[in-house]
Amino acid sequence: MSEISALQKARAAYRPKLPAALANGAFVKVSEGEATKSVADCDKISQLFPKTYGSPVLTFAKGDAKAAAPAINVGVILSGGQAPGGHNVIAGLFDGIKSLNKDSRLFGFKKGPDGLVKNEVMELTADFVDSYRNTGGFDMIGSGRTKLETVEQFELAAENCKNLGITALVIIGGDDSNTNACVLAEYFKANDKGIQVVGCPKTIDGDLKNEWIEASFGFDTACRVYSELIGNLCRDANSAKKYWHFVKLMGRSASHIALECALQVHPNVAIISEEVAAKRMTLDDIVAQIARAVVARAENGNNFGIVLIPEGLVEFIPEIKALIAELNDILAAGGAEVEALDAVGKANFAQSKLSAASAAVFRSLPEGIRKQLCNDRDPHGNVQVSLIETEKMLAEMVGTRLKAMKAAGTYRGKFGKQTHFFGYEGRCAAPSNYDADYCYSLGFNAAALIGAGRTGYMSSVRNTIKPADQWIAGGIPITMMMNLEHRHGADKPVIRKALVELDGAPFKFFESVREKWAVETDYVYPGPIQYFGPSEVCDLVTKTLALEKN
Amino acid sequence: MSEISALQKARAAYRPKLPAALANGAFVKVSEGEATKSVADCDKISQLFPKTYGSPVLTFAKGDAKAAAPAINVGVILSGGQAPGGHNVIAGLFDGIKSLNKDSRLFGFKKGPDGLVKNEVMELTADFVDSYRNTGGFDMIGSGRTKLETVEQFELAAENCKNLGITALVIIGGDDSNTNACVLAEYFKANDKGIQVVGCPKTIDGDLKNEWIEASFGFDTACRVYSELIGNLCRDANSAKKYWHFVKLMGRSASHIALECALQVHPNVAIISEEVAAKRMTLDDIVAQIARAVVARAENGNNFGIVLIPEGLVEFIPEIKALIAELNDILAAGGAEVEALDAVGKANFAQSKLSAASAAVFRSLPEGIRKQLCNDRDPHGNVQVSLIETEKMLAEMVGTRLKAMKAAGTYRGKFGKQTHFFGYEGRCAAPSNYDADYCYSLGFNAAALIGAGRTGYMSSVRNTIKPADQWIAGGIPITMMMNLEHRHGADKPVIRKALVELDGAPFKFFESVREKWAVETDYVYPGPIQYFGPSEVCDLVTKTLALEKN
Repeated sequence: MSEISALQKARAAYRPKLPAALANGAFVKVSEGEATKSVADCDKISQLFPKTYGSPVLTFAKGDAKAAAPAINVGVILSGGQAPGGHNVIAGLFDGIKSLNKDSRLFGFKKGPDGLVKNEVMELTADFVDSYRNTGGFDMIGSGRTKLETVEQFELAAENCKNLGITALVIIGGDDSNTNACVLAEYFKANDKGIQVVGCPKTIDGDLKNEWIEASFGFDTACRVYSELIGNLCRDANSAKKYWHFVKLMGRSASHIALECALQVHPNVAIISEEVAAKRMTLDDIVAQIARAVVARAENGNNFGIVLIPEGLVEFIPEIKALIAELNDILAAGGAEVEALDAVGKANFAQSKLSAASAAVFRSLPEGIRKQLCNDRDPHGNVQVSLIETEKMLAEMVGTRLKAMKAAGTYRGKFGKQTHFFGYEGRCAAPSNYDADYCYSLGFNAAALIGAGRTGYMSSVRNTIKPADQWIAGGIPITMMMNLEHRHGADKPVIRKALVELDGAPFKFFESVREKWAVETDYVYPGPIQYFGPSEVCDLVTKTLALEKN
Repeated sequence: MSEISALQKARAAYRPKLPAALANGAFVKVSEGEATKSVADCDKISQLFPKTYGSPVLTFAKGDAKAAAPAINVGVILSGGQAPGGHNVIAGLFDGIKSLNKDSRLFGFKKGPDGLVKNEVMELTADFVDSYRNTGGFDMIGSGRTKLETVEQFELAAENCKNLGITALVIIGGDDSNTNACVLAEYFKANDKGIQVVGCPKTIDGDLKNEWIEASFGFDTACRVYSELIGNLCRDANSAKKYWHFVKLMGRSASHIALECALQVHPNVAIISEEVAAKRMTLDDIVAQIARAVVARAENGNNFGIVLIPEGLVEFIPEIKALIAELNDILAAGGAEVEALDAVGKANFAQSKLSAASAAVFRSLPEGIRKQLCNDRDPHGNVQVSLIETEKMLAEMVGTRLKAMKAAGTYRGKFGKQTHFFGYEGRCAAPSNYDADYCYSLGFNAAALIGAGRTGYMSSVRNTIKPADQWIAGGIPITMMMNLEHRHGADKPVIRKALVELDGAPFKFFESVREKWAVETDYVYPGPIQYFGPSEVCDLVTKTLALEKN
């Protein structure tokens, strides 16, 4: 047995809180709502999902403590990027199916959907599950990014489940994985495979949420880890008084993480991609906005500050989006001859072929970024946006702008810069109480959905700004969250992704205070996640959720 | 009043623990040891410090609870880089001088030694001190890097103290700041200024320690923050199973931080600069060592891992040290003509002038690093070693090595890499219980040294692997820790810097397990610093200290 840390040892004993409906186990009383519709494209979605479309929203109430159900075998899969709390979903599911019948068994498919197709599987025994309670990471059974999309995969999945006597699958994943879970549910039902499929909403990005799913798990913990670190940087900036820190934050396209961290720490500037797109801001606008804050603070003698930048930003800047699209085409068309050039050669080649507008944008970028755009390409020849060091690009461009302002006499401060990228540090942190409780409840509740014989549902636990015994447990038909999106040349049914809403309460609040934060030093230092202290320290909910629900 | 976080609010109430000797206040019973000598160069050090050399080691015991002393005015300065706990030193000093006489007053000189010379000062009142208890950062009064070295500075300092009635100064800083504190103490005593000077050992780097000072404050907290993050990366690596993470850790020249983090998380590889220097390892040796671990793990199907790299590494690699020295000379001699070249031009120019050995080393470096070495130079024309992205350099060179091995058929794995630098995130974290208690004790104990009429002493709190009531409080003559070092063409008295000792228990232990850690996945996940839980989680000491003292 490997060494485990003192904290992990103590934290293993934590008993996650459950909604009142699950207090007597996963055998619950089920209330059915009306038949449901998808959020858009109802006709087409209903045609694509004839067997699972239109199912009612389910709400659970406490069941009979002594009720028993037949023993079942259940399979579970972790899909996609890590998020804090995944292990607790599995622990909750384990305890949930055991509460239905102590002889129920849980099987973990390894390395994500691949394990289901290739039959890489292990039984998750009580001791094994216990050793992962309240821990971070997905190392318990691993995860993977294989998409479940083809009939061949579905048949193999059904076959492998059948061999283990598995009659229900729980897929823990993001919007795409849950969409695929629903496709699988539909296929199994249409083909009488006798296997239910239930999804659980996971992603630190926070972009899988809607009227019925109020948060994706992991968002809370990841934001707390990043906010701890940003708070520490704020304290450092305010102590040394000599650096502007540019912090890029993980979170793919949506800016929920950057916004939540801003709400937690009150940085001087936080760029929100959705606003950049809506206002069609240029790169120059963004640089100017940051430079304005630097200048205003310098006037007060404060030559330091904090800037938050969402990972996906460049794709939301219309002119950069256009530039990248042109570059993808130009460099691909250049063929092997261009491929053989070094970065400078590629940049020169691209420069000569770009439209006038894109060429101007390209020229305005720092040299390193120009090279990165030409050099770091994926196997399809496309720019790898996630590799673009936006934080360095903006810091450098702001520096250049300030130099010009200094020469013009409109800026008299000193500008020192540091850049950071926070991402991997937060994806596998041990879950906060919120995520530990929420995940455990999601998993336990998935067992209740299975017990209630449902398929094509997402496990739903709501009202989480209240104490756990007031949380509302139930199930939402996955089709209900779907619309059609045009992807790779075809219309596909997908769960609608939740971007930051510019008229939503979290952004509105941010908007109302950001001018003050830009100039004043109003930092808040959240500090590290606490597990053992007073409830007002340990049982926090995100600022985003609190603003959305209050 | 600005918003403060829930944790900061709850943590403000924490009462740091004190050694038993200070339980009745700073009026203590003093035991004097024998006259002391410096660690080397005794004759010269004693000539340089005729008034303060040879003072005895002091040990304190509990004093009379009802004793009173005259009210005094004391000044305090934070010097150099931030370290967690600085505010608690000030809070301890405040409470300590108040325990001597409730009418004692504390003045904070702002922005470091500069404030003392320029008379930028504020009185630290009870309310103000309370609002900073147990917080991180140095923002309470700011810090600075001005060195107190000249008679002119000393006279200004004496004048400014005299005007405020200050008869004792406490300087909180690293080895250089404490050396200067001693020079100041000597000057004040020799010139009958009537101002005592006492130092407190600060630095996250951990290189200010010796037989009498067992830790510099901030080291514990900074290492815990970095270990939390590295542990999270380990969990992520072990979950996604597709990246090697190369993590550079702050800590200037010594590798104490890298070693401590290694002991806490069990990474696959940790480079220790002192070993590199002692074994005269080449850059190629280091790359080969990391590549060996990658290959061995790939053989077991584990294409992931964690590598820790100390910030100061490049200066410990003999060939790189030689290369940098040559580059400094060559580029300085090149004058304005070379200065005007771009990075490629400079690199080509340098390449043509380097010795054959250094030219070969230069050629072996990745392009980006070559440019960095030629471009990022300080105002004196020297390479800025701290800007060299060693983590990227090593990751890239390991990648290149593995490609060659793959072509040769000696490696069949996949190598994906991510790089990180952890530094600023840890310097201003809120102090752990260890640092909160240790710092408060150091400050309170400094008041005891002042009360006992001593000068040229460092506040010493030892036996800290035991509960606080068994900690030993006292004072160490700063001259005792000094030797002469050749700096800028002259012999200077300095506190001997503590590097990682290769025959010390922490390194010996690391050496005994690292082969196992390299191949196996033996990660430990320390998690975030806890303040409210069981003592075995909240009152940890560093692995380094535990190994050194047990």
